[in-house]
Amino acid sequence: MGSRPADFDFDRSTQVVRRGMSAGPGLRDPGVTSFDVTSFDVTSFDVIVHDGWDIMGNANGGYVMAIIARALTEVTGRPDCITVTCHYLAPCPAGPAVVDVVPVRAGRRFATATATMWREVDGVRKVIAQVMATMGDLEKDPGGPTSMAGGPSPIPSYEECLSFGGPNDAASPALHTRLATRFHPDDVGFRDGHRSGRGLIRGWFAFRDDRPIDALALLLASDAFPPAVFNLDVATNWVPTVELTVHVRAIPAPGPVQCSFETRYLQNGLLDEDGEIWDSGGVLVAQSRQLALAPRAG
Amino acid sequence: MGSRPADFDFDRSTQVVRRGMSAGPGLRDPGVTSFDVTSFDVTSFDVIVHDGWDIMGNANGGYVMAIIARALTEVTGRPDCITVTCHYLAPCPAGPAVVDVVPVRAGRRFATATATMWREVDGVRKVIAQVMATMGDLEKDPGGPTSMAGGPSPIPSYEECLSFGGPNDAASPALHTRLATRFHPDDVGFRDGHRSGRGLIRGWFAFRDDRPIDALALLLASDAFPPAVFNLDVATNWVPTVELTVHVRAIPAPGPVQCSFETRYLQNGLLDEDGEIWDSGGVLVAQSRQLALAPRAG
Repeated sequence: MGSRPADFDFDRSTQVVRRGMSAGPGLRDPGVTSFDVTSFDVTSFDVIVHDGWDIMGNANGGYVMAIIARALTEVTGRPDCITVTCHYLAPCPAGPAVVDVVPVRAGRRFATATATMWREVDGVRKVIAQVMATMGDLEKDPGGPTSMAGGPSPIPSYEECLSFGGPNDAASPALHTRLATRFHPDDVGFRDGHRSGRGLIRGWFAFRDDRPIDALALLLASDAFPPAVFNLDVATNWVPTVELTVHVRAIPAPGPVQCSFETRYLQNGLLDEDGEIWDSGGVLVAQSRQLALAPRAG
Repeated sequence: MGSRPADFDFDRSTQVVRRGMSAGPGLRDPGVTSFDVTSFDVTSFDVIVHDGWDIMGNANGGYVMAIIARALTEVTGRPDCITVTCHYLAPCPAGPAVVDVVPVRAGRRFATATATMWREVDGVRKVIAQVMATMGDLEKDPGGPTSMAGGPSPIPSYEECLSFGGPNDAASPALHTRLATRFHPDDVGFRDGHRSGRGLIRGWFAFRDDRPIDALALLLASDAFPPAVFNLDVATNWVPTVELTVHVRAIPAPGPVQCSFETRYLQNGLLDEDGEIWDSGGVLVAQSRQLALAPRAG
């Protein structure tokens, strides 16, 4: 992709630059009392959607979510997205954009905010993504009881899984040049026309430059695998995400994280994809669910 | 609960009254160009959170979501929440409140908007819930392929399942006086101290007054069962929802809908609860997932 080395860095690629803050009332119709005035603050950030974190020219949804999450962290002062939901409203080619963050509530344990990523296109404000998140600090969280119905499902080791998307693999999405993802050999048959018949894709997520996997990186990981629906016997090659929700459940221990994404119900062109991400210590570090479209093959 | 008959009606109980619309720019710091101005519209609704849709005095989360969804329908002109996420920020006793809706994007197939339910408490604006939704019209949706990994799991018929919360059952939440929910006999042992050990609760959802189950009612159904975590061997009696997402996948055929809610991973006091709702024709009508807290038992 001809990317400069600096672009390779996830942290540089998700940088946000605070632009300014404004506070103002949302004015209602004249004659209303102060009870009818909604006050709000907007903090704006300049961001650059970097080339090379894309699928066919449009930024990966997890990457978009990570940029917005960084802005949310800045405004709320909380490092971790406990739960974050993103609605994807327009494709996002590389280039500058703005992220506006509006705080909703700040409590002792959590802080909730909304965010909008937008850019001006042909003189018109175009919204790329709308986000709502409740932020916290998992390291300081008071915690509580644990009762797990299962753990990570057994899959081949990182070394036994298959890589694709290396710098010499022109057929793979650009995103994978940044990543050192590895895939379960049983789950990538769709690449040469051998769909497994089960909407499942499993493997390991890591950065190619060995950047540690923190809460922000888990957002990227939640959307970095090929769609699980590719393994169903259904003609789909374009699976736009309508909505992605990620629950960050813990900060991963060092090393690649084990991922599993499954589509169970493709019904009338709408599908779910549920993800689980486990760290090397067998801790559940994230759960994800997305609603996506599988348009009729034209 | 001494509710008047009119209060019993789900439609009256989720009524929203349009108050007015305001359009205004979100002003930035002085000297910025028009590129830096965020424009937005707010449409406000007066709503009444009715008594009797509560759990121990606080409105049920699905009921709160349904009220807000009605306001979203009014503003977007789309009847169905294709995907809706609600973050619950304060308990909600019965009484008046305001729902502010802000449109984000209106496309041909879907329209996205955010909404805030709030009320004034002791002179301070208190946010009860923050919502983001993408709305559509399932009856006119273009559709697409279908490939289902399963169907509704076999459970006893509606008649064979157990009811509770009848008008004479003072120990049940008020909510259940409005509903004709029935529960799988294997899943309600927690009520007399016999937890099944599996975080699962299954049964049927219906209204006591036989109101049809439409997209709005599915939002209520998604949060109307006792927490599945009650069946785990963990001391919890209070399970506040942080976030609930519902995907409405189809409009149900007539009759009670079959529901299943499962908590798989309670880890350090944070838990998931995944729901599936199927209609009498075996169609998946909704999926839900919530992130909730299981505080340490005091």
